[in-house]
Amino acid sequence: MPSNPVYPIVWRDDRVLLIDQTRLPHNYTVVEIKCCEDMARAIRTMIVRGAPAIGVAAAYGMYLGARDIKTADRETFVTELEEVAKLLRQTRPTAVNLFWAIARMLKTAHETIGSVDQLKTALLVTAQGIQVEDLEICKAIGDNGLAAMPATPEKLCILTYCNAGSLATAGYGTALGVVRSTWREKRLARIYACETRPRLQGAKLTAWECVQEGIPVTLITDNMAAHCMHQGLIDAVMVGADRIAANGDTANKIGTYSVALLAKAHNIPFFVAAPLSTVDFDLPTGDLIPIEERHPSEIYQIGETVTCPTGVEFYNPGFDVTPAELISAIITEKGAMRPEELQQFRVKQLA
Amino acid sequence: MPSNPVYPIVWRDDRVLLIDQTRLPHNYTVVEIKCCEDMARAIRTMIVRGAPAIGVAAAYGMYLGARDIKTADRETFVTELEEVAKLLRQTRPTAVNLFWAIARMLKTAHETIGSVDQLKTALLVTAQGIQVEDLEICKAIGDNGLAAMPATPEKLCILTYCNAGSLATAGYGTALGVVRSTWREKRLARIYACETRPRLQGAKLTAWECVQEGIPVTLITDNMAAHCMHQGLIDAVMVGADRIAANGDTANKIGTYSVALLAKAHNIPFFVAAPLSTVDFDLPTGDLIPIEERHPSEIYQIGETVTCPTGVEFYNPGFDVTPAELISAIITEKGAMRPEELQQFRVKQLA
Repeated sequence: MPSNPVYPIVWRDDRVLLIDQTRLPHNYTVVEIKCCEDMARAIRTMIVRGAPAIGVAAAYGMYLGARDIKTADRETFVTELEEVAKLLRQTRPTAVNLFWAIARMLKTAHETIGSVDQLKTALLVTAQGIQVEDLEICKAIGDNGLAAMPATPEKLCILTYCNAGSLATAGYGTALGVVRSTWREKRLARIYACETRPRLQGAKLTAWECVQEGIPVTLITDNMAAHCMHQGLIDAVMVGADRIAANGDTANKIGTYSVALLAKAHNIPFFVAAPLSTVDFDLPTGDLIPIEERHPSEIYQIGETVTCPTGVEFYNPGFDVTPAELISAIITEKGAMRPEELQQFRVKQLA
Repeated sequence: MPSNPVYPIVWRDDRVLLIDQTRLPHNYTVVEIKCCEDMARAIRTMIVRGAPAIGVAAAYGMYLGARDIKTADRETFVTELEEVAKLLRQTRPTAVNLFWAIARMLKTAHETIGSVDQLKTALLVTAQGIQVEDLEICKAIGDNGLAAMPATPEKLCILTYCNAGSLATAGYGTALGVVRSTWREKRLARIYACETRPRLQGAKLTAWECVQEGIPVTLITDNMAAHCMHQGLIDAVMVGADRIAANGDTANKIGTYSVALLAKAHNIPFFVAAPLSTVDFDLPTGDLIPIEERHPSEIYQIGETVTCPTGVEFYNPGFDVTPAELISAIITEKGAMRPEELQQFRVKQLA
């Protein structure tokens, strides 16, 4: 049975325990990850998913890989660790947290003084640090998002997309972190959760998290969002992010761009909730964000049901890019800000 | 095996044969409809669906009901026929063709001179007339739509929504009628078919029709439309209609409004293809169109797969309303026209 609050990644007995997110909401199972190859597979197959959670998982993957390197020679160790990094980097191309966490682990390896054993210890400490920080950051995002919510109505209806919840982070969530803070302070009436085809993370994961906490949740298909907005059912839209370019353009789950355009057309504020580690200051605009294309079976097969006849072609981009001008505010651990205000954090991140 | 071209409704041996559209694309089965109660059930359960096809089916339903009325007294006959009309009207509230066809059948009953037997014959002739007219109207819509297509590029990529094809009409289709005419004249490169949750008519029916005719079709989930538009993959959007208000506001499958907003945001022409019988001149605007709300199981269950946990609520509107200002042209059997030009056909329809 799940604990409440939910932690999708737990370090215990020299291994990583992951909630298998491909089996929710009907089966709550925990997968043991004992080596970096297992972790790479878990990220690729989306046993663990969500940009911040992928970052934490990759950090532990780096440690598992490091732990298993059989050498006492620092230089050999670092070379082999670069191979581990390469393996993990190949899992999913869009979420920048993956690359950020791997880079941070490599930095630890390069900068730590001492023996290989000391490096390994430092890497475990760094991985755990990334995890603890992410949880703290999510809580800060939640409270900053609460402060950024529209003043009226008193009880808000928030539309969410995909899952940017506890399951997508070390815990608490980014977009759902804001939802949790809003619920705690009695500012929330209801969540409208878009099911989020093709993989249905909204139906499977966001709905599950809401039910766990007793938050009222109405599930809709993605194409109902505009109609709900037109009917006045939605006061704000809250989504996560997989990578944010320096200008604020935001890559997130396919369909996010669509919801942002619809929110704009209805004058509904559209918020992105994400840690600053999601910002890729090396990319000036979102056009440069690599978009993962996933297997067509995600489109044509749902459970045992094949939806279409043979002879059809498919296009299955995993993400899209929402331009900064559609984003009312980006909610980070440093506060809610206009996309153009992200720039001020550039130097601090590099430092 | 299906015939090509496909006719979803066939009158043969004193009964109606319907292609069971709930079992496509994997099972091609034909259901025999022998009485008006069977027809009401077939419309409600969407064995037959699509506004024009519902109209044709309801007309035959009226005849089947009329045929089974056991009286030689005209007045009793007409009173009992009103009961048949009532039964059929209760099946689905949004598509106006249902009410239009029933009204036309009642008009035949009221205006035909002669015995009850003669009335019954006249009703069968009227039902068959509605069917033949619809096929002719669809072919005219197809050719009028072809003429309304953008001049460039030479080979168009058209995005479709739901199914407004042969299966949704007496044959040939409205939106897919335009597609067929465009394909015939070698102006079509490819269809992008939105799968159309919750019932997946795009994946199941539109994709099936395209494959039947060898038209290249790429299936996408509904939330990918904006991304495809942004990437320049879409030259025009073509949808059908379930009811059009006098000002051109158009009710169609849930999600159509969303696609119209997205097309507007990308400067892509958005076309509605529908017979003039779809226009409800009694309703000044689309706000007055009744929107059918369907069973939540359509959202939470796909085949055997239940997508979400228990404890979730649902909202399942079957249709939404696209305001006239988002519609580039309405393509009818009388030509493609701006929504405000519909008014000129008001008197003619009443005459």
